Amino acid sequence: MRLLEERIRRDGKIRDGGVLKVDSFLNHQMDVELFQEIGKEFLRLFGDCGVTKILTIEASGIGIACVTAQFFHCPVIFAKKNKTRNIAGDVYTSKVESFTHGKVYDIIVSKDFLGPEDRVLLIDDFLANGSALQGLIELVRSASAELVGAGVCVEKAFQPGGEMVRGMGVRVEALARVKSMSVEDGVVFC
Amino acid sequence: MRLLEERIRRDGKIRDGGVLKVDSFLNHQMDVELFQEIGKEFLRLFGDCGVTKILTIEASGIGIACVTAQFFHCPVIFAKKNKTRNIAGDVYTSKVESFTHGKVYDIIVSKDFLGPEDRVLLIDDFLANGSALQGLIELVRSASAELVGAGVCVEKAFQPGGEMVRGMGVRVEALARVKSMSVEDGVVFC
Repeated sequence: MRLLEERIRRDGKIRDGGVLKVDSFLNHQMDVELFQEIGKEFLRLFGDCGVTKILTIEASGIGIACVTAQFFHCPVIFAKKNKTRNIAGDVYTSKVESFTHGKVYDIIVSKDFLGPEDRVLLIDDFLANGSALQGLIELVRSASAELVGAGVCVEKAFQPGGEMVRGMGVRVEALARVKSMSVEDGVVFC
Repeated sequence: MRLLEERIRRDGKIRDGGVLKVDSFLNHQMDVELFQEIGKEFLRLFGDCGVTKILTIEASGIGIACVTAQFFHCPVIFAKKNKTRNIAGDVYTSKVESFTHGKVYDIIVSKDFLGPEDRVLLIDDFLANGSALQGLIELVRSASAELVGAGVCVEKAFQPGGEMVRGMGVRVEALARVKSMSVEDGVVFC
């Protein structure tokens, strides 16, 4: 998606340790007009898949998922990272390793909102090591729901997540695939 | 807002300890078409205030804030609950007490995205004890930005947050104000 690639080239910042900062428009400050274009692109890619639910993970996936869901006319569910008192009863649960925070945490979704009748599209901002998507896939499978695929905004194609998730038989569509990046050469897309 | 009140009456669940569960449409599963109506209502209330940024707090405020921001044609910033490696540099910080989780945590916003030139609307799903709003107000004041007001979906008017925040001189608009609730009588609105 050229619009997103251009935005990453213009406003993305490369930091030591393979960090691509896109927090001025994607995952801290959020450009909702860009999200609308992202949502339309996900609709173009997955619009014929009969999606009944969009599933994402807190926190930075939620905004993109909600704006996208308007085009699919379906609800969003976000997997929560901690079990709170407000979620009683039965939940599906899986584990996610956060490389940003350096820890493993549980994610949960209430069993009330995901079941065998659902056709689920996963949405997230980043695909790098694939741990978040893997956790979400496990939730969908626990619910015996149909997994339509995963739409991510930015894939770091030089990290193993994309290959791993595709190797699980899941359709993954990334709107911008970063082949390499460095302070000297900037961001190079696939 | 009658649509939201009706939805709460129909799908909200009252639990022991003053918990109002609205997780089937507001803050776990999210009805984005309802969010659009909520966004239009916030525009009706705050549309003439020259809002340049919508500020919310992760996680459950993000979806409502992003859908609402489409009507204001402005970006959303969400305050993060933990300092991650991806946010380097200077941040505004304040503290929020979570009664749901029973702990106090720091929230942060990058100084890059909030400044004296901004006119800020706060958006959140719930107003109960007011701790989240208070933390967000402190961030806005730290940035020397202008606080336009706060729009919340549900105010538990029998808890002290609304009075406290209004007492700070902040305009608060709640789309559904719960006067009382009990398993016997259901939800009563102001």
